[in-house]
Amino acid sequence: MGKILRVNLTDHKLTDETLPEEILRKWLGGRGLGVYLALKEIDPKVDPLSPENKLIILTGPLTGTAAPESGRWCSVTKAPLTGTIHDSQSGGKWGPELKFAGYDAIIIEGASEEPVYLWIHDGKAELRDAKHLWGKDTHTTTDTLIEELGDKNIKVMCIGPAGENLVKFACLINDKGRAAGRGGHGAVMGSKKLKAIAVRGTMKPPIANEDKFREAVRANRDKLMKHSVTGDALPKYGTAVLVNIINKHGILPTKNFQTGVHPTADKYSGETIAEKILVKKVPCWGCIIACGRYTRIPKESPFAGEGDGPEYETVWAFGAQTGTDDLNAITKANFLCNELGLDTISMGHVIGTLMELYEKGKVPEEKLRGLVPYWGNGAAVVELTWRTAYRSGIGDDLAEGAKKLAEKYGAPEVAMVVRGQELPAYDPRGVQGHGLGYATSNRGGCHLRAYMIAPEVLGVPQLVDRFETKGKAELVKTFQDGFAVVDSLVLCKFNTFATWVEDWVGLVAGATGWDVTLDELNKIGERIYNAERVFNILAFGDGRKYDTLPARLLKEPMPEGPAKGYVVKLGEMLDEYYSLRGWKDGRPTRAKLEELGLKDLADRLEEAGLLPG
Amino acid sequence: MGKILRVNLTDHKLTDETLPEEILRKWLGGRGLGVYLALKEIDPKVDPLSPENKLIILTGPLTGTAAPESGRWCSVTKAPLTGTIHDSQSGGKWGPELKFAGYDAIIIEGASEEPVYLWIHDGKAELRDAKHLWGKDTHTTTDTLIEELGDKNIKVMCIGPAGENLVKFACLINDKGRAAGRGGHGAVMGSKKLKAIAVRGTMKPPIANEDKFREAVRANRDKLMKHSVTGDALPKYGTAVLVNIINKHGILPTKNFQTGVHPTADKYSGETIAEKILVKKVPCWGCIIACGRYTRIPKESPFAGEGDGPEYETVWAFGAQTGTDDLNAITKANFLCNELGLDTISMGHVIGTLMELYEKGKVPEEKLRGLVPYWGNGAAVVELTWRTAYRSGIGDDLAEGAKKLAEKYGAPEVAMVVRGQELPAYDPRGVQGHGLGYATSNRGGCHLRAYMIAPEVLGVPQLVDRFETKGKAELVKTFQDGFAVVDSLVLCKFNTFATWVEDWVGLVAGATGWDVTLDELNKIGERIYNAERVFNILAFGDGRKYDTLPARLLKEPMPEGPAKGYVVKLGEMLDEYYSLRGWKDGRPTRAKLEELGLKDLADRLEEAGLLPG
Ligand code: SF4
Ligand code: SF4
Repeated sequence: MGKILRVNLTDHKLTDETLPEEILRKWLGGRGLGVYLALKEIDPKVDPLSPENKLIILTGPLTGTAAPESGRWCSVTKAPLTGTIHDSQSGGKWGPELKFAGYDAIIIEGASEEPVYLWIHDGKAELRDAKHLWGKDTHTTTDTLIEELGDKNIKVMCIGPAGENLVKFACLINDKGRAAGRGGHGAVMGSKKLKAIAVRGTMKPPIANEDKFREAVRANRDKLMKHSVTGDALPKYGTAVLVNIINKHGILPTKNFQTGVHPTADKYSGETIAEKILVKKVPCWGCIIACGRYTRIPKESPFAGEGDGPEYETVWAFGAQTGTDDLNAITKANFLCNELGLDTISMGHVIGTLMELYEKGKVPEEKLRGLVPYWGNGAAVVELTWRTAYRSGIGDDLAEGAKKLAEKYGAPEVAMVVRGQELPAYDPRGVQGHGLGYATSNRGGCHLRAYMIAPEVLGVPQLVDRFETKGKAELVKTFQDGFAVVDSLVLCKFNTFATWVEDWVGLVAGATGWDVTLDELNKIGERIYNAERVFNILAFGDGRKYDTLPARLLKEPMPEGPAKGYVVKLGEMLDEYYSLRGWKDGRPTRAKLEELGLKDLADRLEEAGLLPG
Repeated sequence: MGKILRVNLTDHKLTDETLPEEILRKWLGGRGLGVYLALKEIDPKVDPLSPENKLIILTGPLTGTAAPESGRWCSVTKAPLTGTIHDSQSGGKWGPELKFAGYDAIIIEGASEEPVYLWIHDGKAELRDAKHLWGKDTHTTTDTLIEELGDKNIKVMCIGPAGENLVKFACLINDKGRAAGRGGHGAVMGSKKLKAIAVRGTMKPPIANEDKFREAVRANRDKLMKHSVTGDALPKYGTAVLVNIINKHGILPTKNFQTGVHPTADKYSGETIAEKILVKKVPCWGCIIACGRYTRIPKESPFAGEGDGPEYETVWAFGAQTGTDDLNAITKANFLCNELGLDTISMGHVIGTLMELYEKGKVPEEKLRGLVPYWGNGAAVVELTWRTAYRSGIGDDLAEGAKKLAEKYGAPEVAMVVRGQELPAYDPRGVQGHGLGYATSNRGGCHLRAYMIAPEVLGVPQLVDRFETKGKAELVKTFQDGFAVVDSLVLCKFNTFATWVEDWVGLVAGATGWDVTLDELNKIGERIYNAERVFNILAFGDGRKYDTLPARLLKEPMPEGPAKGYVVKLGEMLDEYYSLRGWKDGRPTRAKLEELGLKDLADRLEEAGLLPG
């Protein structure tokens, strides 16, 4: 554990480094180690698309082991979409292969003059010319590298044209259909002219205490198999099993969050996907849940195609968010995002933003070249996806994200974003805690920092009143810190439906040999969340001003359905949240930071005049 | 007349040059002057996409004058699609504006390291950084330049992504919707990293003898107005007025020339276009015919959009050639070609090639990602257009043209090409002379070297038996030489429906003051045709072996319709053609070349051992 490859693209220099065990134990890996390295190496004020930004690719202490759903990896950078510290997680088979190739992390810095790719195999790494791959989509890039490197077991992570074109929500795609989706990590990689990272290895990660580890794995697996979500719903219908559930709760954001009910949402539900277009399930490496789908749109459809997906967030983004219920159009847009390297959530979300701007008469006709972005226009959804990846016509505006799009066309209030990141597939007016989670998310609008849908809607671990604000601050903090742990172990978040931090202690202890405790792991989660916040404070003065939601969600009551009449009562939760966090107006105090072993960060805040007094 | 701008992109040097009047009188301008310059300056063996190739942009002695339909321009290069000398003509408003800006021609040589554009205004020229335009489509490029140069009267010619991506049939687009379409001139410009040429000028071209010129203009105009084609059919229905006529003659190439009848062709005829999608007519500069269309696809269609076109060749290429009759899909593909910078004829043609390869089981499923290119799949036509411009997935293969595509997938006989250029919208089995025209075209498969459809189908100047071979060689030669004149005066070829070389003598004499004769002009036409042939012989040993047609047209009788049972009896015409040309096995003799004042070319052939003995 702890072997890092440093890739300086400016001078094409590769260096092997190691990290002291003390650092690993303090930050685990993945997201945690990423924020540690970012705070150490990235000037928080840097332009995210400049050579001075870094892209940090990480696995975790359990990656590629028998721990359930450990076939994942994580990317950390200062994100172009948000200007915040930003981690993005992905599944597939690439992460474990990187580990088998002998590296736990890659720090990518500088920028190359000409396109290159990185080839890592069994402890060796080299940069190679990628001029022939520049401009190519992710599938062609992957196939070409596997062919020219001559090993079918090679795994490829790469950017598509969207990343090369610096689309602000371009993603990293691995194994052709898995994405480190949000925030625009693809644009960072594109700005560095790094097209791909191909990996191949045969080194299995060592396990310190085999017996202890095996026992912990068995216990975690049992819980996952027995739980109705991870043992039944996700395997059967994939994540899109949520469509009907969320719609029935009146919180499926429809037409850019104008309402929470999409009457025809069942047309793109997980059940309908299974019935109409599912070809097979696609698990990530070693996963027993296999929520991934591989689908095919029939040839008679104008949107014929096949590929990975769609997931819940994706069918929402191209579906309800744009008022579209054509499963074929929705799925086609997903395929294109995989091929072109776009985050499906932001892509669909931004199309919905354009549609509302168009509805409001804000978009001059000549900008559209005859394309009419009315609600429910599935063909426009597909065409706008092409156009965004290539910045063609109006796509050039969409490529900047919902915030800049809405500002450019004179209606900033239409942007449903937090810290510049487009909100995902749950209208928080009907899930108060989830709203607090959005508002306080360090990487911007996100359901994956505190998935309050679990307790507020799904009853996991137990059902709480979703319209209630009391007690939500504490739940949100617990989720945020726990999710920081799971993201740093680099396990799949779907573990958390069935297991929680106490279940992972044995996994960590078994794999690493550390005498780690539940308290220690929880403290790590809290440390990470605070460290991220410090990065943001140093970057742009993050704090209370940013811990908010679009006015629509705070002031316009939900117009219909089971959540009718509600707004997010953020004010009722925020102060309690700050107090539980030991923060003042959204900024950690010295006491809190020192408690977490982050004295250096308190000093940095103080130097910058940003430490709350 | 005769002011040339030389643009060396390697060292970013611009030079003004002039040509002696003797050269101008020998070659006129446009295509003729282009082949003269190409023979002088381009090594015929050069790689078309190397810096050693040149792109020569030309106007003619009548460009921007009152001569009818003189608002055009011409590009000459060694073409990447064919490896031949290649001229491509375009309309719009850009050509006259270049003339008004003080230049008759531009010789573009070398290649820039970084993207640049050329800005020419009233006798001044400069190269400017175009990094911000690279990757942009032709509309955005045009709008951006007009805006940043701050003059609404600026005209822009540019390449789209297809040219940047070196698609072998990428075109030059001016005024957003007019194309120097065939052969891949856009790829040549892309290879030189020249994104655009913006022009603006106020200098009217001088007329040597105003009275004489005015009289000639009046006479030519009269004939044009009175003729049923130029005075009625073209203005009313645009070029697509041909759809029903050609289909009724059983020579509308359908499903990659498998038959000559497309039963539902009326769905995309000029008449239907006028009824369903026409917004307005768009004339080129100063044109009284105004065959150009501006159309809008309704917003309910999955192919919604608006823009210039479609023309006859385009509706054929995306229509009959792919078995598609959906006018909306056809027109959308046209709009995309305009925006992305693709030749519509080759684009549609190549999609038809793919469809036949697919029908024959030659294309592995994994190459297609679920897209199913069956005959009549209009949605696939649109998607493949996107993919080709960006070389995405199978589009990377389509971008190489029909010949390479068919070879790659193991069925070279499926490529309906002559000298590597995809055949256009007339099946020659039902128009024998037109077949000879295809076979002997110096720029590869082309209807614009000898439009035998005029006499063989339209009865212009008078109807001849289209199935007869006798006398066709002479007609073809006459048309080839006359068209070389019109292309060198850089007049619109549609003049030739109503006027011919004798009508243009007065125009040339009036504008230039030369005591030019009919014989002299005809000789110029013949000179140009021979000079082009010499270039090709020096380039790749052109000759009888290349003066042929795909086997399908020579051996497989037309299966149905009014041309049923016919093949092209090329052998019956070719020897007569050679004898009329003074060629031996497709190569000019010394006697012929010296008669045309081309002794130097005879010497060059002899030196290369290629002069027929
Ligand atoms: S549950 Fe789904 S996302 Fe998570 S590891 Fe398994 S297949 Fe991948
Ligand atoms: S006839 Fe058509 S192509 Fe020719 S100059 Fe006129 S508008 Fe242009």
